[in-house]
Amino acid sequence: MKIVKIFEQPVRLKSSISNALVDFSTHTVSIIAVVTDKIIDGKPAVGLSFNSIGRFDQSGILRNRMIPRLLNAKPETLLNPASEKLCPEKILKCAMQNEKPGGHGDRAHAASALEIAIWDLNAKLEDEPAAVTIAKHFNRDSVIPKISVYAAGGYYYDGQHKQALQDEISGYKDSGFTLFKMKIGGASMSEDIQRIEAALEIAGEGHNLAVDANGRFDLSQATAYGQAMAPYKLRWYEEAGDPLDYDLNSQLARVYNGPLATGENLFSRQDVKNLVMYGGMRPDSDIFQMDPGLSYGITEYAKMIKEIESQGYDRKFAYPHGGQLMGFHIVAGLGLGGCEVYPKVFQPMGGFQDGAIIDNGFATIPDLPGFGFEKKLNLANQFADLFK
Amino acid sequence: MKIVKIFEQPVRLKSSISNALVDFSTHTVSIIAVVTDKIIDGKPAVGLSFNSIGRFDQSGILRNRMIPRLLNAKPETLLNPASEKLCPEKILKCAMQNEKPGGHGDRAHAASALEIAIWDLNAKLEDEPAAVTIAKHFNRDSVIPKISVYAAGGYYYDGQHKQALQDEISGYKDSGFTLFKMKIGGASMSEDIQRIEAALEIAGEGHNLAVDANGRFDLSQATAYGQAMAPYKLRWYEEAGDPLDYDLNSQLARVYNGPLATGENLFSRQDVKNLVMYGGMRPDSDIFQMDPGLSYGITEYAKMIKEIESQGYDRKFAYPHGGQLMGFHIVAGLGLGGCEVYPKVFQPMGGFQDGAIIDNGFATIPDLPGFGFEKKLNLANQFADLFK
Repeated sequence: MKIVKIFEQPVRLKSSISNALVDFSTHTVSIIAVVTDKIIDGKPAVGLSFNSIGRFDQSGILRNRMIPRLLNAKPETLLNPASEKLCPEKILKCAMQNEKPGGHGDRAHAASALEIAIWDLNAKLEDEPAAVTIAKHFNRDSVIPKISVYAAGGYYYDGQHKQALQDEISGYKDSGFTLFKMKIGGASMSEDIQRIEAALEIAGEGHNLAVDANGRFDLSQATAYGQAMAPYKLRWYEEAGDPLDYDLNSQLARVYNGPLATGENLFSRQDVKNLVMYGGMRPDSDIFQMDPGLSYGITEYAKMIKEIESQGYDRKFAYPHGGQLMGFHIVAGLGLGGCEVYPKVFQPMGGFQDGAIIDNGFATIPDLPGFGFEKKLNLANQFADLFK
Repeated sequence: MKIVKIFEQPVRLKSSISNALVDFSTHTVSIIAVVTDKIIDGKPAVGLSFNSIGRFDQSGILRNRMIPRLLNAKPETLLNPASEKLCPEKILKCAMQNEKPGGHGDRAHAASALEIAIWDLNAKLEDEPAAVTIAKHFNRDSVIPKISVYAAGGYYYDGQHKQALQDEISGYKDSGFTLFKMKIGGASMSEDIQRIEAALEIAGEGHNLAVDANGRFDLSQATAYGQAMAPYKLRWYEEAGDPLDYDLNSQLARVYNGPLATGENLFSRQDVKNLVMYGGMRPDSDIFQMDPGLSYGITEYAKMIKEIESQGYDRKFAYPHGGQLMGFHIVAGLGLGGCEVYPKVFQPMGGFQDGAIIDNGFATIPDLPGFGFEKKLNLANQFADLFK
């Protein structure tokens, strides 16, 4: 089999929200369709994906560097000889041809979209969910039947802060979520503490609420917030400081007893190795949030998981960033701790397939081929536009 | 004053060479012209630059993200109120608007081209070399009158390896260079040792020759090469392992007594802080090679230098990667150790102004406004094409 064509299109996210650092109203994502010469139900088999959420489309890198490399490669060099299907590892290696080491930023997101499309394609060729294909590939006995999911949101609102935040979290609760995440660091600490208390009125105990500073704080701010939040025994305290400031994370871990979470802005195995070696992460509590949709895809993500496990950490503490269908299947297929969801924001990328049921904080992979993008109508429409 | 227009164009490097990892024949660079409403000699004042060498053009990020942010900004928000000129720090901040922390890769190279163009512009407005503008801005008494330069090359050749390598280094020597750098890691170790011995026949003592593995080795390979090369007392041993593998660098520094060099693939102050904290760099010998042309520009590069100095290192051990006019002026203006040059390769970007004299390993900043791109004809022609 061979790749016939690769479509790429930037799509603007529908979002009027902002976190502690970023206004998402201008954010874009690259959607991808890899078209092959294999036929399923009378039509060419296609792998779909996008480069997660949060760090812009990568049209330039995809169209000028990576897609030409794949289309110029000899088709047989991209195949897994045993399965005669396209091989995600070989796709990634080809997409990264002549790239220098280090500098894991935008190109990691670009490569990820290409690599993950191959998983969608291969799952469709087997007529099975991508989670099943992933589990088989990595020799896991089965996919997780019930995946722990949490609702990420809790943004800043103009005007009626408290009521709007409580309404947002109530909405998630009514949809079946039991764990919620909210932003901190975009207001004064005293205002943020009031917001946390307002959120807890809906969420219940601290174990049901995580907070996310999006890398905003220096060590003294991070520590001050930690001290102020300690009595609430929150589920986790996410990205207190710069994501590459392992020293800050390590110092914070020494004074903040609750769980810390980080990793969504680390995009390679080597960066994760550095977090593990220098970041002071505690194996019995701290959360790893690397996002395969931003990090060269599932091939590299599996190496990240192997890296943390080789250093004594458990994949049950991995909760990928992203809040979309790819993360959902990857969590299920690799047996990770749980999955972020953006139920209402970052559309059309955020959230799961239409009609997805969240039952008391858990969700189940539907019996659809691939990642099931075709059953998320607003997203399916975007993919359909690629072929026009 | 305000920015009227920003031109960007990818340019393919003329290179038939390869290092240990990368074939450069497909490599590109973004060239930039920032056009303002200030008039010099009857023409609009323009700042020129490019995103160094080695990591591809950044047309997508520049055209879709950063250039629109600059053109949409209120002009007064980009000015230094004291000088009424464009402020490089504010240009960088605006170009990075709504970008998340971490992930210092392609966008660092894109931002760099924009930020450095402003230094070219401001120097031209003062009718002085960029080195002088840089020195003044950072409160340095003067630019370095004689800058230590070294010739980077020593690539792999098909066929007559030894003769071709010796001819290449002889050419540099005839041009006035006294320090040379060659590639290792693209052949077997025994072949590389033969190449080193061949190069030393021309270079003279080991102090005149550095070697560069371009991040190829794991620790055992890096150590084996170190042991094999130790008797030659080479000037430095560059990028033995993955540029982010601080642990490898640190372990190698414990067993290899000669100078190590690294940093050309670290693109932010935070990454450099990590190198300094965890990489085992030795203040009396090891070389820092961060490239301002790849790393958000001179604003961020100055923070890197401040970071290493705050940890007890001396800027005399900073030799920026890049081998082009921007690095030349930055070394002179900031008082760094020395400057890489690619005298014959990576054209039209590599090397200095036409007729530049290398005298016994030293060069002097010419009395031309800005970085002097206009007096490097092949590069000036590329910039001229932007306006067609």
